[in-house]
Amino acid sequence: MCAPSLMSGVREELSRRRFLGLLGASAAVAAAPARAAGQGGPVRLPQGFRDTYDLTHTLSSGTPVYPAFRPFEAVERFTIARDGFGCSDLTFNEHTGTHIDAPIHFVDGQATVDRLPPDRFFAPLAVVSIVARVDRDPDATLTVDDLLAWEKQHGRLPPGAFVAMDSGWDARIGDAGRFLNADAGGTLHSPGFSGEAARFLVEERDIVGVGVDTISLDPGSAQAPLMAHLTLLGAGKYGLELMANLGIVPPSGAMVIIGAPKHLEGTGGPVRVYAVA
Amino acid sequence: MCAPSLMSGVREELSRRRFLGLLGASAAVAAAPARAAGQGGPVRLPQGFRDTYDLTHTLSSGTPVYPAFRPFEAVERFTIARDGFGCSDLTFNEHTGTHIDAPIHFVDGQATVDRLPPDRFFAPLAVVSIVARVDRDPDATLTVDDLLAWEKQHGRLPPGAFVAMDSGWDARIGDAGRFLNADAGGTLHSPGFSGEAARFLVEERDIVGVGVDTISLDPGSAQAPLMAHLTLLGAGKYGLELMANLGIVPPSGAMVIIGAPKHLEGTGGPVRVYAVA
Repeated sequence: MCAPSLMSGVREELSRRRFLGLLGASAAVAAAPARAAGQGGPVRLPQGFRDTYDLTHTLSSGTPVYPAFRPFEAVERFTIARDGFGCSDLTFNEHTGTHIDAPIHFVDGQATVDRLPPDRFFAPLAVVSIVARVDRDPDATLTVDDLLAWEKQHGRLPPGAFVAMDSGWDARIGDAGRFLNADAGGTLHSPGFSGEAARFLVEERDIVGVGVDTISLDPGSAQAPLMAHLTLLGAGKYGLELMANLGIVPPSGAMVIIGAPKHLEGTGGPVRVYAVA
Repeated sequence: MCAPSLMSGVREELSRRRFLGLLGASAAVAAAPARAAGQGGPVRLPQGFRDTYDLTHTLSSGTPVYPAFRPFEAVERFTIARDGFGCSDLTFNEHTGTHIDAPIHFVDGQATVDRLPPDRFFAPLAVVSIVARVDRDPDATLTVDDLLAWEKQHGRLPPGAFVAMDSGWDARIGDAGRFLNADAGGTLHSPGFSGEAARFLVEERDIVGVGVDTISLDPGSAQAPLMAHLTLLGAGKYGLELMANLGIVPPSGAMVIIGAPKHLEGTGGPVRVYAVA
């Protein structure tokens, strides 16, 4: 048994060890194979630090975008040979690549991306898989029953949770046509949160936001009003879209860390998103 | 005394508590006053989690940029009133706002930003203040002596460290003229790493990268060849520029977490950067 004061001492020591656990982190470490087209994968940090997962797709002109948006573009402006340094100008819609929807994206008066408190970008991560149903039906939705089934297995969603839908869709990232999955009439077919699941999370649980590995929080075939977007963003929650590698993260017990953009009055933008477990 | 197996149990429990420490994180928390013009400040996370600092400036068309670069631009493309959702296209140079220089920015064959291993974005943070000298001389540099003085006080730089220069320059962020501090001939005057300090960090210590609160890793008045850039990036290290709030972070013992951009073959780009302490 540890006396309370010793517990406190151990705790400080563990904090130090967690920092010092990064000893050697600059050495090359091998990434475990990522599922399907994911470019990330767990990185085994040496000397006691925990696994870090990169839940971010590499962004390029080939990254699928919502049909109304322009593709990501980089234009080289300076080169090492001519100027001594190289760099490009970038142009893209805010909602491009692995990105965040700030609440104001759909609801006037809600927070812009620069106004979201940074502490909301460190959150307990709950990954809810609907891969088995999506394999049969690309219009499958994440339902209240899926959330209750997750809770039956892992316990009630922790307060301040970030709830991510794993539909396996990130495997399509290299093929924009398959990712958007439009039918002959132009309607997209991809999984998303049902309106009821969004309402349950907002009214019955305490979350900071949700994420999907598809193009939209709502199912691709949803027509206005888009209930998942309106319900979640209208309640001040944020959303992440085009997440990667959710299938290799522990479904419970990890923490998500979101490097969100911070441009003035932004409605969203590309993020770097990690999980540590 | 704790037996090793119990220590292990405590460690797991602490890990769980750290995750669960985010209980209530979605509730409003008051940010302590940030120094000068910094928009961040320590956020006290409730229930046992540690302080989180936002080391990122808000990015806007008023953000100072290197004189050869275009300013940040946002153009509204969709509005809630007309389209049901609002968003903008963004255009900016990769080296805009609080941003990262990938090694390839100055040195052919070095890593692009999408190829930097994610584990290097979690690093022990060492903040070296030269504020006292900068108040007298805007051309002051961070020297080897400054690094050795830091080590005398805090111990040897931990392996895999991220070394940040605090010059107090972030207080100028709201005034691009004062931030760039150009003289009549157009030469900038702002602090940076001396070439010798860069060489010392690369050859005598083990670092993942460095950061500054100014427009450049090198002093503003440096002429080509820019030794801090060439030495650090040539050794595969990355740099952060325009960091915020370094003056309120503990100089030793914190960890930096960098949400770096991940666009294909990028030379750099805006980051979200946090410190936890």
